[in-house]
Amino acid sequence: MSVRHASDLPATEVSAGRGTRMQVLIGPEEGPNFAMRRFIMDPGGGMPLHTNEVEHEQYVLRGSARVRIGDAVHHVRAGDVVYIPAGVPHDYRADEGDEPFEFICVVPNRPDAIHLVDEGC
Amino acid sequence: MSVRHASDLPATEVSAGRGTRMQVLIGPEEGPNFAMRRFIMDPGGGMPLHTNEVEHEQYVLRGSARVRIGDAVHHVRAGDVVYIPAGVPHDYRADEGDEPFEFICVVPNRPDAIHLVDEGC
Repeated sequence: MSVRHASDLPATEVSAGRGTRMQVLIGPEEGPNFAMRRFIMDPGGGMPLHTNEVEHEQYVLRGSARVRIGDAVHHVRAGDVVYIPAGVPHDYRADEGDEPFEFICVVPNRPDAIHLVDEGC
Repeated sequence: MSVRHASDLPATEVSAGRGTRMQVLIGPEEGPNFAMRRFIMDPGGGMPLHTNEVEHEQYVLRGSARVRIGDAVHHVRAGDVVYIPAGVPHDYRADEGDEPFEFICVVPNRPDAIHLVDEGC
């Protein structure tokens, strides 16, 4: 089907995250080269520092968060565009408040693995 | 630069369209596999029926429009997800009103050409 509303698509919990769900908007069975997903993080939720084997191209839809990419810490909000190269450690922490942090994340159709980064004690 | 706001990026007129501008949010010089763009169509503006040589993965950010994809006509609004396979004729007409029609459009980093479809007299 060519058109559907994101709210009608299933969401799965992201096990490595906290209060974080992911929806596949356009998956590999439809798009031959890359997949479009939507992440929804509850206020105060997020993902710990990790790497992926594929790059992320992201667009923030709603809410705000602290995002670490490599050595830099950014505060992002709706309309921000975020590029995370493959292999670069990154994390997310959604701001506290009433609004979830939502963003589009596009990845190539290639095998990926998430590796958590040990931050010591 | 890993993070920037979409509003700070340049917009170019889409010559085949009417009241239509395009911003490259993440281009091929940064993302190795696909490019993220944002289209902004004034109320009543849009693009005539055409084909592209690459697929489009889209997410509607704001406003609403009539979108034809092949033989089907859809009315799309914020939060709708649109997939347009390579080679399928499609057009856009933004609804009249106060709000522009805005959407994210991701394409693979491959050569593309736009072919207008002759709809006769």
